[in-house]
Amino acid sequence: MRHFIDTNDFTREELQDIVDLSLALKKAVNAGYNPPLLKGLTLGMIFQQSSTRTRVSFETAMEQLGGHAQYLGPGMIQLGGHETIEDTGKVLSQLIDVVMARVIEHKTVVNLANACTIPVINAMSDYNHPTQEIGDLCTIVENLPRGKKIEDCKIVFVGDGTQVCASLGFIATKFGMHFVHYGPKGHQLNDEHKAILEANCKVSGGKWEVTDDRESVKGADFIYTDVWYGLYENEMPKEERVRVFADYQVNRELMQLGNIGCKFMHCLPCTRGEDVTDEVADSVSSLCWDEAGNRLTAMRGILVYLLKDRKKPSASQIQAAKEELESFMSERGLC
Amino acid sequence: MRHFIDTNDFTREELQDIVDLSLALKKAVNAGYNPPLLKGLTLGMIFQQSSTRTRVSFETAMEQLGGHAQYLGPGMIQLGGHETIEDTGKVLSQLIDVVMARVIEHKTVVNLANACTIPVINAMSDYNHPTQEIGDLCTIVENLPRGKKIEDCKIVFVGDGTQVCASLGFIATKFGMHFVHYGPKGHQLNDEHKAILEANCKVSGGKWEVTDDRESVKGADFIYTDVWYGLYENEMPKEERVRVFADYQVNRELMQLGNIGCKFMHCLPCTRGEDVTDEVADSVSSLCWDEAGNRLTAMRGILVYLLKDRKKPSASQIQAAKEELESFMSERGLC
Amino acid sequence: MRHFIDTNDFTREELQDIVDLSLALKKAVNAGYNPPLLKGLTLGMIFQQSSTRTRVSFETAMEQLGGHAQYLGPGMIQLGGHETIEDTGKVLSQLIDVVMARVIEHKTVVNLANACTIPVINAMSDYNHPTQEIGDLCTIVENLPRGKKIEDCKIVFVGDGTQVCASLGFIATKFGMHFVHYGPKGHQLNDEHKAILEANCKVSGGKWEVTDDRESVKGADFIYTDVWYGLYENEMPKEERVRVFADYQVNRELMQLGNIGCKFMHCLPCTRGEDVTDEVADSVSSLCWDEAGNRLTAMRGILVYLLKDRKKPSASQIQAAKEELESFMSERGLC
Repeated sequence: MRHFIDTNDFTREELQDIVDLSLALKKAVNAGYNPPLLKGLTLGMIFQQSSTRTRVSFETAMEQLGGHAQYLGPGMIQLGGHETIEDTGKVLSQLIDVVMARVIEHKTVVNLANACTIPVINAMSDYNHPTQEIGDLCTIVENLPRGKKIEDCKIVFVGDGTQVCASLGFIATKFGMHFVHYGPKGHQLNDEHKAILEANCKVSGGKWEVTDDRESVKGADFIYTDVWYGLYENEMPKEERVRVFADYQVNRELMQLGNIGCKFMHCLPCTRGEDVTDEVADSVSSLCWDEAGNRLTAMRGILVYLLKDRKKPSASQIQAAKEELESFMSERGLC
Repeated sequence: MRHFIDTNDFTREELQDIVDLSLALKKAVNAGYNPPLLKGLTLGMIFQQSSTRTRVSFETAMEQLGGHAQYLGPGMIQLGGHETIEDTGKVLSQLIDVVMARVIEHKTVVNLANACTIPVINAMSDYNHPTQEIGDLCTIVENLPRGKKIEDCKIVFVGDGTQVCASLGFIATKFGMHFVHYGPKGHQLNDEHKAILEANCKVSGGKWEVTDDRESVKGADFIYTDVWYGLYENEMPKEERVRVFADYQVNRELMQLGNIGCKFMHCLPCTRGEDVTDEVADSVSSLCWDEAGNRLTAMRGILVYLLKDRKKPSASQIQAAKEELESFMSERGLC
Repeated sequence: MRHFIDTNDFTREELQDIVDLSLALKKAVNAGYNPPLLKGLTLGMIFQQSSTRTRVSFETAMEQLGGHAQYLGPGMIQLGGHETIEDTGKVLSQLIDVVMARVIEHKTVVNLANACTIPVINAMSDYNHPTQEIGDLCTIVENLPRGKKIEDCKIVFVGDGTQVCASLGFIATKFGMHFVHYGPKGHQLNDEHKAILEANCKVSGGKWEVTDDRESVKGADFIYTDVWYGLYENEMPKEERVRVFADYQVNRELMQLGNIGCKFMHCLPCTRGEDVTDEVADSVSSLCWDEAGNRLTAMRGILVYLLKDRKKPSASQIQAAKEELESFMSERGLC
């Protein structure tokens, strides 16, 4: 049994399996076949914050594959209120098959995973966003520049060193890409992040830079950005963020620093006119809507991957159980 | 691909198809057959306000027909907060198959529909309530006075010119009924509404009146009312509304102005003792509980109608997709 | 049609049927067979308070058995706001198949049941918690001391006379157990409770005590406790409750008053360090995690039991309905 808390807990080969599985499932569903791989299984979805893409894509993924997802939103359950996170984890392990949590503090999802005897998926914390990573890798694989392999590509994250920035750095360096965080001092990835990027590059042959030098954008195959306001709990006021990040808007000029055919990426939501212009977000070079669709692609793959090793009864075991129950109910007149 | 924002976007024949389909599906489900017409499809349910009938009937409809509905309540998603309505619409179009929205301002659902590439259903705005219209038409069709056709009937809406009043006027005049809004000045349907009623009557041969003359109730086959407090966001205080609408309570005296056998209708919730007396609401002439049940009738019909033209893969395409996926998973050891 | 508001409305034999059915369904599901006994049916889940175990177990139960559950949380529907409880009950009866309600005041679920024409389940009120009773009885049956029957066992509830304490007393005396409430004066079961315990014992041959005498714990086969803070709406401050209940913590010393092999039970959530020590909660004698799992066991049994007598169409009726619908849709070009 594995949790999915951090892609750095997985080898490149394992992550490649998840991406390939995600894309294979996408192809099947798009062709009209919804494989019942999660039939009878239930996902608990714990949200400490509002969410559009993560919520909707997880719930759609479970239903398309024959399972079900329960929305456990802020205040709906007693997580961390009358009950410790660990106790809630132990209880959920008795009642459902897999759980995802969008948490305010990373340690919450780590503690939850430690307590659970079912797989736990990190659906974004203040530290990282690993399901976004899988979806983005699917989008990159589907949109590689002609003739290039993934390890030939340069990807530049522009702006605030958010958890999405860190996550992009993790997955890009894991797969041997040239990763750049181009952001202002004070909002750059930190030493802990850099150590991980370095370790990943040692294995994969990738490269990484963290810089406020605009020249670093040159040669990008993909330019990625995120919002400027920081974590919802502690948003940076508009005037301050516009001042701090003024040079980091993804607009026509910045996109032109990239390679010809350079693609725009964004985890969304975006703040149009701040982190990206309408012109870029709505251009033919924009992959951000595909990325949103590939959240669903990723959720299907991650769920099937994590649940593939569960105990599966044989057809004869199921038949025996059916007959025993029907016989009991019939004898007792409970049909 | 069509949206369902306003019944005035549809011809009488199209609306008749939706009503007939709704009633045929109701008959099938009541006989024990739940047709899997929405198998594998997901409805997103956006609510900017609380709702009982609309919420429950949409979710039951999807599940009964093999699909699934996701509840996206106030504050759960980022609609109109960190993300524009249009961007949320583009994203949802990637992740689900159909969306409904109960909105505070009508323009929200219109803008959502403009951005979506999947069908959008107006689940009530401050302007109209078209799913209520279909359910009410089903109820009227099921309860026509003996020997009368729908276009022979007179229906009187009593009281505040709410969005339900406007909607009743739209559908009644579309189907050639004699529609009356009997309400106090200042709370009557406005010129924009009247222009639509007039246009509808020109095509259908129906009649309309908007008046504070109590005589207008005479000869009614159906008397319909709604609450007096107005929109939730800006409720009229109890003392004021009781003063304004004192003459417009649906009670025994008012019902007796209608034809013998006149039926009482209400979209619910009602405020017993204000807009309607217990005696009327709970009488054998009251159709308001049937109307509630026909919300489900309508939702099934509207959903099947809007989704009937989607691309449906052939059995051989599905089989090919199944085999390809199973072969991939088996080769990669991902079963 | 029966409601499930209070186990005292049921005979011991009926409750035994529900427990046996619950355990038979558990065995089937654990062996990999999810019987589709609730196929096409919808449960409405009304919550006036947050809930983890009840919510998750009801929703999982419905899905595992082929049905669906709708979460109707605080503020989501108009129950008791713009609509009376009775009217909401009448409406829900038109739209779904069964309803559960976790309510602040017991009379709310009683009034709801009086208005509904579908089964209503009390999912905890300020008076009792009958679904917890069924789950706990399952746990007791699965963990009887070697050689003892249920009526040979002594069960001691320690601490505050909560609705869970009352419910445990009801079910224990119904099944002929020796039930003790060991709690401080002012927080003991009241005369109304005692009358029910007495009536149950007269039929079952059980025994009951309500006392603050620590000696009463001696010989317990099961020691059960609940939190000290009382109802969420009106929580007792920490200093006060620790003072009132200081002698009533379930710790090593208290457990040692019970029989050898005495088991610890708790409905959860617990407040570690208050009502129970970590040592006891996490010991091999602790059944509290099994109890959480048996909430799901109980929900499956209760739902199947309550819905077993509904009208079920014959295969030929279903086939006829299918053909009629398909013929209509094909003729009208609505496929």
